[in-house]
Amino acid sequence: MAARLGEFERIARFFAPLAAPGALGLTDDVAVIDGPDGQEYVLKTDAIVEGVHFLPDDPPELVAKKLLRVNLSDLAGKGAVPIGYLLMTALPRSRDDAWLAAFAAGLGADQVAFGIGLLGGDSTATDGPITLSATVIGRVPRGRTPLRSDAKPGDLVYVSGTLGDAALGLLVLQGKLAGLDAAHRAFLAARYRLPEPRLKLGQRLLGIVHAMMDISDGLVADLGHICETSGVAARIEAAALPLSPAARAVLAAEPQRLSAVLGGGDDYELLLTVSGAKSSALPLLAAETGVPLTRIGRIETGSGVVVIDAQGQAMPVTVAGYQHF
Amino acid sequence: MAARLGEFERIARFFAPLAAPGALGLTDDVAVIDGPDGQEYVLKTDAIVEGVHFLPDDPPELVAKKLLRVNLSDLAGKGAVPIGYLLMTALPRSRDDAWLAAFAAGLGADQVAFGIGLLGGDSTATDGPITLSATVIGRVPRGRTPLRSDAKPGDLVYVSGTLGDAALGLLVLQGKLAGLDAAHRAFLAARYRLPEPRLKLGQRLLGIVHAMMDISDGLVADLGHICETSGVAARIEAAALPLSPAARAVLAAEPQRLSAVLGGGDDYELLLTVSGAKSSALPLLAAETGVPLTRIGRIETGSGVVVIDAQGQAMPVTVAGYQHF
Repeated sequence: MAARLGEFERIARFFAPLAAPGALGLTDDVAVIDGPDGQEYVLKTDAIVEGVHFLPDDPPELVAKKLLRVNLSDLAGKGAVPIGYLLMTALPRSRDDAWLAAFAAGLGADQVAFGIGLLGGDSTATDGPITLSATVIGRVPRGRTPLRSDAKPGDLVYVSGTLGDAALGLLVLQGKLAGLDAAHRAFLAARYRLPEPRLKLGQRLLGIVHAMMDISDGLVADLGHICETSGVAARIEAAALPLSPAARAVLAAEPQRLSAVLGGGDDYELLLTVSGAKSSALPLLAAETGVPLTRIGRIETGSGVVVIDAQGQAMPVTVAGYQHF
Repeated sequence: MAARLGEFERIARFFAPLAAPGALGLTDDVAVIDGPDGQEYVLKTDAIVEGVHFLPDDPPELVAKKLLRVNLSDLAGKGAVPIGYLLMTALPRSRDDAWLAAFAAGLGADQVAFGIGLLGGDSTATDGPITLSATVIGRVPRGRTPLRSDAKPGDLVYVSGTLGDAALGLLVLQGKLAGLDAAHRAFLAARYRLPEPRLKLGQRLLGIVHAMMDISDGLVADLGHICETSGVAARIEAAALPLSPAARAVLAAEPQRLSAVLGGGDDYELLLTVSGAKSSALPLLAAETGVPLTRIGRIETGSGVVVIDAQGQAMPVTVAGYQHF
């Protein structure tokens, strides 16, 4: 068996030493470079691979939208206004023009939905699975991009929307939650298949929040990234986690599925820290954007993430996030 | 057999309608967005796939350098100063840390060589071949990026370096030029394996040239792109094409290999058009940068590319360029 580090260790060992100044030491989701007119550009590259991130028979429109949205969600996590993207497609020769036409239709629909355009790209053939990558570019007022390293002890921790739906949706698609009501199953599967980047809310949160990012590796893993980069600890109350009715129904029947909520990944909700004083602005923003914001815990001195159960006890949490290696 | 258009037709049909304003209608190699301080940013995404663009047992250092250089060559074709790149790696689980360490070492060496840094990226697993993509970013004084659409009738056509070496080098690696002198074979193979982006020369040519791009699809195909986008024709003299001693040796033995010079691709030399008046500046720039610049023809009114042989006759040229679909 060849020696293999985990994904985060690989990044730290092999790629972090290569980081440019704008790369924030590769400790954040995005890179930041100077822009015109008092703006800076936020850049993100994210790839999806057939068989890893989507299924071979997933509708091409949905695959296209998922590719754009996982990238746009990173921009949402920085409060950026997206302006465009570059696209890399590596397609097997078995994918015909009908597949590509549907894929392009999906891109076009989301370009309209999110106000972006295709800036350029590369198309190549592959003998392997469909591999798609996008580099998205957004703009933020200069110096205002909220970083993972901006959390401060005493901050409150908030998340948008509801957590765990996508991870539970993957279980639905794998046939593992067959006892669940059909409408709940459909809701969870849709949340897995098509994330909703919280762009408007992210933009409104600029100047209010300290640290902010989108949750893609799972709540505990991503909050752990904030803690590590900021040099702080976080204390989360499990009972405070916002859950959809469908997720509540799952947990009522199978309480151990809470691990999917805490660590499942693919939530694509916002995770942020904010001072107590400024947190009073959040309910109005949530109401105006139609996206709930829920306080789930607090930033403290120290290190690491602790999850407290309903009895006030620290829960053992084994969370790897989405480690693709 | 599923219906499949060629790569260029696929781009025109499915992707061009999605183009953002900065995408130049996807008719150029790069996208251009506004930058700070009187600059604009030039962006390019290019991917390489194991088994398509490189071989499974190619040294990882070389694979890393090839990935960066095929992208940097596009920046060279726009006279841009590179500033950084984002990286996407999709690696099979069989690639161990030793492979990745060597790959990262190759990136690091070329970062130093070309003055760039890693801005960010994404690492994922794949069940297929190694798939690598980079998005490079460079800067050019605002409004000065030379486009494919900038060629004018009466312009002279120049290329840098020598043509056809990489295409012949691929033949060497495929064992098809076994009769050639070993030193020539080694030279051609090296030219295939490791392009040399003409960054310094490209930067010096800004403000002098009209249209400029790097040759990656082959001379005739890429000059055809310039002609189509500029609404002009080009007339090339085969006898004027700059050849390395190794390429000369191949053509002396097998004259039909001229097709590899005209259409082989992977040259990564500069292709440019310039007015007769301004062309007088070129010999000095070539001398100062140590990269030859050779006049190979002329831009005319009309459409299409004509190659004239030593007898003054138009040669039949069937050139597809590198079509990956």
